[in-house]
Amino acid sequence: MKASQFFISTLKEAPADAEVVSHKLMMRAGMIKKLGAGVYNYMPIGLRVIRKVEAIVREEMNRAGAIEVTMPVVQPAELWQETGRFEKMGPELLRIKDRHDRDFVIQPTSEEVVTDIARQELRSYKQLPKNFYQIQTKFRDERRPRFGLMRGREFIMKDAYSFDRDQAAAKASYQVMAQAYRRIFDRFGLTYRAVAADSGAIGGDLSEEFQVIAATGEDAIVYCPSSDYAANIEKAEALAPAGPRPAPAQALTKTPTPGKSTCADVAELLGLPLAQTVKSLVLATDTLNEHGEVAKSQVWLLLLRGDHDMNEVKVGKLPGMEGGFRFATVAEIEDHFGCKPGYLGPLNLQKPVKVVADREVAVLADWVCGANEVDFHLTGVNWGRDLPEPELVADLRNVVAGDASPDGQGVLAIERGIEVGHVFYLGTKYSKAMNATFLGEDGKPAHFEMGCYGIGVTRLPAAAIEQNHDERGIIWPDAIAPFTVVICPIGMDRSAEVKAAAEKLHDELAALGVDVLLDDRGERPGAMFADWELIGVPHRVVLSDRGLKEGQVEYQHRRDTAASKLALADVLSFLKERVAV
Amino acid sequence: MKASQFFISTLKEAPADAEVVSHKLMMRAGMIKKLGAGVYNYMPIGLRVIRKVEAIVREEMNRAGAIEVTMPVVQPAELWQETGRFEKMGPELLRIKDRHDRDFVIQPTSEEVVTDIARQELRSYKQLPKNFYQIQTKFRDERRPRFGLMRGREFIMKDAYSFDRDQAAAKASYQVMAQAYRRIFDRFGLTYRAVAADSGAIGGDLSEEFQVIAATGEDAIVYCPSSDYAANIEKAEALAPAGPRPAPAQALTKTPTPGKSTCADVAELLGLPLAQTVKSLVLATDTLNEHGEVAKSQVWLLLLRGDHDMNEVKVGKLPGMEGGFRFATVAEIEDHFGCKPGYLGPLNLQKPVKVVADREVAVLADWVCGANEVDFHLTGVNWGRDLPEPELVADLRNVVAGDASPDGQGVLAIERGIEVGHVFYLGTKYSKAMNATFLGEDGKPAHFEMGCYGIGVTRLPAAAIEQNHDERGIIWPDAIAPFTVVICPIGMDRSAEVKAAAEKLHDELAALGVDVLLDDRGERPGAMFADWELIGVPHRVVLSDRGLKEGQVEYQHRRDTAASKLALADVLSFLKERVAV
Repeated sequence: MKASQFFISTLKEAPADAEVVSHKLMMRAGMIKKLGAGVYNYMPIGLRVIRKVEAIVREEMNRAGAIEVTMPVVQPAELWQETGRFEKMGPELLRIKDRHDRDFVIQPTSEEVVTDIARQELRSYKQLPKNFYQIQTKFRDERRPRFGLMRGREFIMKDAYSFDRDQAAAKASYQVMAQAYRRIFDRFGLTYRAVAADSGAIGGDLSEEFQVIAATGEDAIVYCPSSDYAANIEKAEALAPAGPRPAPAQALTKTPTPGKSTCADVAELLGLPLAQTVKSLVLATDTLNEHGEVAKSQVWLLLLRGDHDMNEVKVGKLPGMEGGFRFATVAEIEDHFGCKPGYLGPLNLQKPVKVVADREVAVLADWVCGANEVDFHLTGVNWGRDLPEPELVADLRNVVAGDASPDGQGVLAIERGIEVGHVFYLGTKYSKAMNATFLGEDGKPAHFEMGCYGIGVTRLPAAAIEQNHDERGIIWPDAIAPFTVVICPIGMDRSAEVKAAAEKLHDELAALGVDVLLDDRGERPGAMFADWELIGVPHRVVLSDRGLKEGQVEYQHRRDTAASKLALADVLSFLKERVAV
Repeated sequence: MKASQFFISTLKEAPADAEVVSHKLMMRAGMIKKLGAGVYNYMPIGLRVIRKVEAIVREEMNRAGAIEVTMPVVQPAELWQETGRFEKMGPELLRIKDRHDRDFVIQPTSEEVVTDIARQELRSYKQLPKNFYQIQTKFRDERRPRFGLMRGREFIMKDAYSFDRDQAAAKASYQVMAQAYRRIFDRFGLTYRAVAADSGAIGGDLSEEFQVIAATGEDAIVYCPSSDYAANIEKAEALAPAGPRPAPAQALTKTPTPGKSTCADVAELLGLPLAQTVKSLVLATDTLNEHGEVAKSQVWLLLLRGDHDMNEVKVGKLPGMEGGFRFATVAEIEDHFGCKPGYLGPLNLQKPVKVVADREVAVLADWVCGANEVDFHLTGVNWGRDLPEPELVADLRNVVAGDASPDGQGVLAIERGIEVGHVFYLGTKYSKAMNATFLGEDGKPAHFEMGCYGIGVTRLPAAAIEQNHDERGIIWPDAIAPFTVVICPIGMDRSAEVKAAAEKLHDELAALGVDVLLDDRGERPGAMFADWELIGVPHRVVLSDRGLKEGQVEYQHRRDTAASKLALADVLSFLKERVAV
């Protein structure tokens, strides 16, 4: 490819609305162009990267036995009504009406449509397993789209759906995908982790996120440097503390803490470690009557150490929380605690509440909590002595760095990641809702066991940039670079020798299957180099009259700090060895 | 590819709503699956065909110097308001609102968005010419979607847009595309014609349709078997008759024609050729006032021979018709002719009308027309004697087979076609509406000269089937077949020899780059052959125990009436020669 026949359009400055580095660099490199909020044109450079991502995904999905289909972008609402998602999903599901006033949605995913295909096409257990996938435009009407392709509204996703005869077979299909995803992410050339994720009510370990590691990532990833344990923060278990609870050493004391309504303030005032304080989180669950109205509410008191954060996923799994929970209202709090928030605790309640203690709180002695009286806390609080043992002890918190690894192999570390893939065991959630069955070996109809598997095709380049960039621009891994090698001839318009050598090298590399671009635009060297460093082509060869006189060219990898000289005669074999084709 | 790892799902009967043969066969072959009216899943077999079409289109577009981008499916309404299409287009433009109640459209084409890209990115004449294209999902909310992918609502189109500095350059860009389209359609392996089409108000010859020839086509194509003239029926000119008008030979006579209100009935009653009768078409044009209300109307009388049909495109170009026309109301007709429709004519009018005669009518003598009196016609009518010479003589009709070719090279023939491509010179229509300019060589801003170029990617397979099928199913050209070669082993499960030979042949063909499928499903021969004849794979090789004992296989092209024997040793070289890779 020659630059003069391509379209290169770089910017010195990123537009003001680009907040994160990948968004800025994609705009500056001319990869994308904003059309509206969260809606982008994929410009030639960007589309090349996207196509390479798609090709790798497609190859590995096919290799894993998945079968490509394409489901419509515009989907009739009927199927979405069968599963209830048409009503239940929030406004991120874009609902539209056609000219006949019939309801449609723009697909954000395609569980309903693929399950509809399966219930029509897969009639016997003999046809199973099957895995259908598509690489297709999706739309999610984000309330606040931002960060470019990281959180856009229209995007390209690869979504796959497996159909199996039973749970064992579904787990095998899940593992096939989990392995295929590892091959895919290995091929992208990115540093990533496959982390255990929460699989909702189904339980088990059949949900993994593929996280591209980047300091700017929005997700916290928990891993153990001395084992292969990795999970997202929602999922990672905080083990029960090893030792027993110390014996009480202090007397229960009511202490004035005027204006100190946070654990941190109280700890500071009293000169105690934050880990000695206990925070009180007041939640509520509602029971509905047959008309869907709240019949009665239960108030919960969750106790966590002052230095710990509540984990909503774990809390949502407590017995009694199945129907969801909410934070209690101030009225409910005052009614039960006789005190406003900021000074709450489990002692001296006005009305009974359900108390759940985090595992770490359950082993504390001589702790501090609110006195249920404004401007007062209690110190020297002890379970069994000052209040009954907690009704329920559970893991309620996010792990922190230094916690013991759940696999018993060391301590946990935390880093940031960007989720670009997800494999998930669905069970019979959709097949039951849509009554999608096949005839089993016993001649009886059975519901499909399903899994779903997504990769954010247009999100991946953004994640790759968050991980791989410097102050000059993007640094692509070979596999998804818009071009793998760029040839930069200096003075091509003046020197027939430079022109001939550049074109020869271009043709030879292209013949080897290398994705090479010859920059024949006639830009000055500084501008030319700046463009390619911004765009992030990994391998650069510079040809000049002076160099060629000595039979030499200059080679620089995008990560190198300086160019190195190379004999023109050796450049082909040199690149052949280093460049991924 | 092995059938057991793929998805094959054929039907004995087409669903009742499939009206045309391509729709029936695509449903029966398992290429597509209906999701809603005009909305289809592309199933694995169908998607393979679509991908091959896309690959050929992409290769030739790139070869022609066009640059691939992707524009969003969901587009903000603002740009569409700039050109006025948001308001002007009919309900086939799907208008939607996002969660913030902002207006969007689902793209049916992308002139607005690409012109917006150009006005931002192409700042100087030095950057021209440029041609941006995309292969992307489109949506047109057809009132009555039907015929499967032939007239669906969601479809895939390749749309390209060229930007040039002046008309001469735009015409050159147009010619580059017209040539690329010929290469593309040649490669598809279909019989097609590039026919001149009407280019609207712009005039000139810069609009061609690419029509796949098929008896079932909805478009009439005019061509000259003895030259390369070809046009669609809207465009093809009916030349002025060669000879002079004969002298009057009959007297003007009012003849009773009770109940005979059509030319055909009148000709039959009077025993005259239909070509001697003249039909009266009454049209009207309206002049609007500043409030957009009709200020006054002009009534027109168009005279055509009884055996000819009016051509609306040609009529729309008459001087005075620029603002569009309509058929006159019965009230207007009775007001001007003093008679109801069925017995109208240009003599004895109540009020003056504007008379336009078709070229063929202008040279008639002794003709027949309505007497402007119910149940009466006039015979022996002659121009100049019985009524004034026509105010205007013009080409008002569709050509018919046997008409002289406009290029003077013989006579015209007519066949049917399916439009699958269109190249069109747009001029400055969009660039002026959106004030899209570049800096010219003279330093002054100038509007882009544009062209647009479409190919119906998902329509093409339907057109290919309309042209290539028989009672057993589809007959694909090699280039766009879902598989080029199918290997059908008989008794593969019983015979290790058949299995080994089939797998060896599969691997050898695959290594040559042949798109081969091995049918290892274990179906009985009859069912297996019927599937592949329905799906339409062009080359079939059958292996059996008995044949292999004699060192032979059976080969049959999908168009052959019987299989021929072939030495197993020769099959590779035989296929290598016949199969397009």
